[in-house]
Amino acid sequence: MKSTTEYLTFNIPARMGFMNITPRVEENVRSSGVREGLVLVNAMHITASVFINDDESGLHEDYKKWLEGLAPFDESPQRYAHNLTGEDNADAHMKRQVMGREVVVAVTDGKLDFGPWEQIFYGEFDGRRPKRVLVKVIGD
Amino acid sequence: MKSTTEYLTFNIPARMGFMNITPRVEENVRSSGVREGLVLVNAMHITASVFINDDESGLHEDYKKWLEGLAPFDESPQRYAHNLTGEDNADAHMKRQVMGREVVVAVTDGKLDFGPWEQIFYGEFDGRRPKRVLVKVIGD
Amino acid sequence: MKSTTEYLTFNIPARMGFMNITPRVEENVRSSGVREGLVLVNAMHITASVFINDDESGLHEDYKKWLEGLAPFDESPQRYAHNLTGEDNADAHMKRQVMGREVVVAVTDGKLDFGPWEQIFYGEFDGRRPKRVLVKVIGD
Repeated sequence: MKSTTEYLTFNIPARMGFMNITPRVEENVRSSGVREGLVLVNAMHITASVFINDDESGLHEDYKKWLEGLAPFDESPQRYAHNLTGEDNADAHMKRQVMGREVVVAVTDGKLDFGPWEQIFYGEFDGRRPKRVLVKVIGD
Repeated sequence: MKSTTEYLTFNIPARMGFMNITPRVEENVRSSGVREGLVLVNAMHITASVFINDDESGLHEDYKKWLEGLAPFDESPQRYAHNLTGEDNADAHMKRQVMGREVVVAVTDGKLDFGPWEQIFYGEFDGRRPKRVLVKVIGD
Repeated sequence: MKSTTEYLTFNIPARMGFMNITPRVEENVRSSGVREGLVLVNAMHITASVFINDDESGLHEDYKKWLEGLAPFDESPQRYAHNLTGEDNADAHMKRQVMGREVVVAVTDGKLDFGPWEQIFYGEFDGRRPKRVLVKVIGD
């Protein structure tokens, strides 16, 4: 069994934002030499996500509005006890649970085995600082 | 390491619906010959899910009502900018994030290593057309 | 390829609660002898979750309140058809979908390859009875 581990760093210049990281993951899969296996891609921070969906800017705006409705940003500890710690990002910990921490993608014939519209995104909910994503490829 | 890749096609005759696909995945695991490993089962479309829960029709009705409350169908671009593209399925992209894209299940002694009530479902949020699910088994 | 399978049992003394199970998973990874690979950790029950987030008690209280808002406990079958079966836990099946069934974590150099704050939690939404979590380590 082969395996490779890469750490990608992203710095989103806003509190919330989405970035298509598919080309970076494809590059990691290619350089791993794995032909058949799995690739795990996960946020290493707990106020960020890795998820698979559509690369369409309208949809990304919809996601932002929708997530803000489900778990509004509010720095006050009246709404979120977590913010008693001095943090202001309790909402980001919730948004990340909705969007998920990680994806596992099949590697078939040396490539990401994707449907027609699948793209991998880094999702940031407490940005404006560098954060890391782990890419682990295993297989033969 | 052994690995097999199968593509299953489903056509749900409604916008939203759930289908128990456990027997199909069991068949793929059996024919893979893998005794110890993992199986990845994922929707290849971004308005559909694969998830694990209970095969109980009342619960499935509850899921539909609940998801409709969290992300209502609305074809107008006033609610969802994604629908400016000519699509009417922005809500489906949200419902799928709540229910998830994929499951990873342990294969132990040649079988899906499941708790008493675990069953694998295909979840459709923009149906009435054929869509694919990928099943990748890896292990020894 | 090496692989090991362990079943952990937890009994949360409340309907809803979160427990840091990272040390147990670390122990399983260590005893597996796997240096490079993946570990799957999943709830074997469909009203429970395994997820990765912060070990901060204020945040856990926030999660409880937030999940209760998204999918309120209500034993009546008027709100949830699932409760016509004699169960009272339809809400727990929804809370579990938001928080997720499983996590897949990279094993690198014999250890969980984690960011600075990542911890693995068992999330219970219909507790006061023993339930199991599966830990499957695969790799070399």
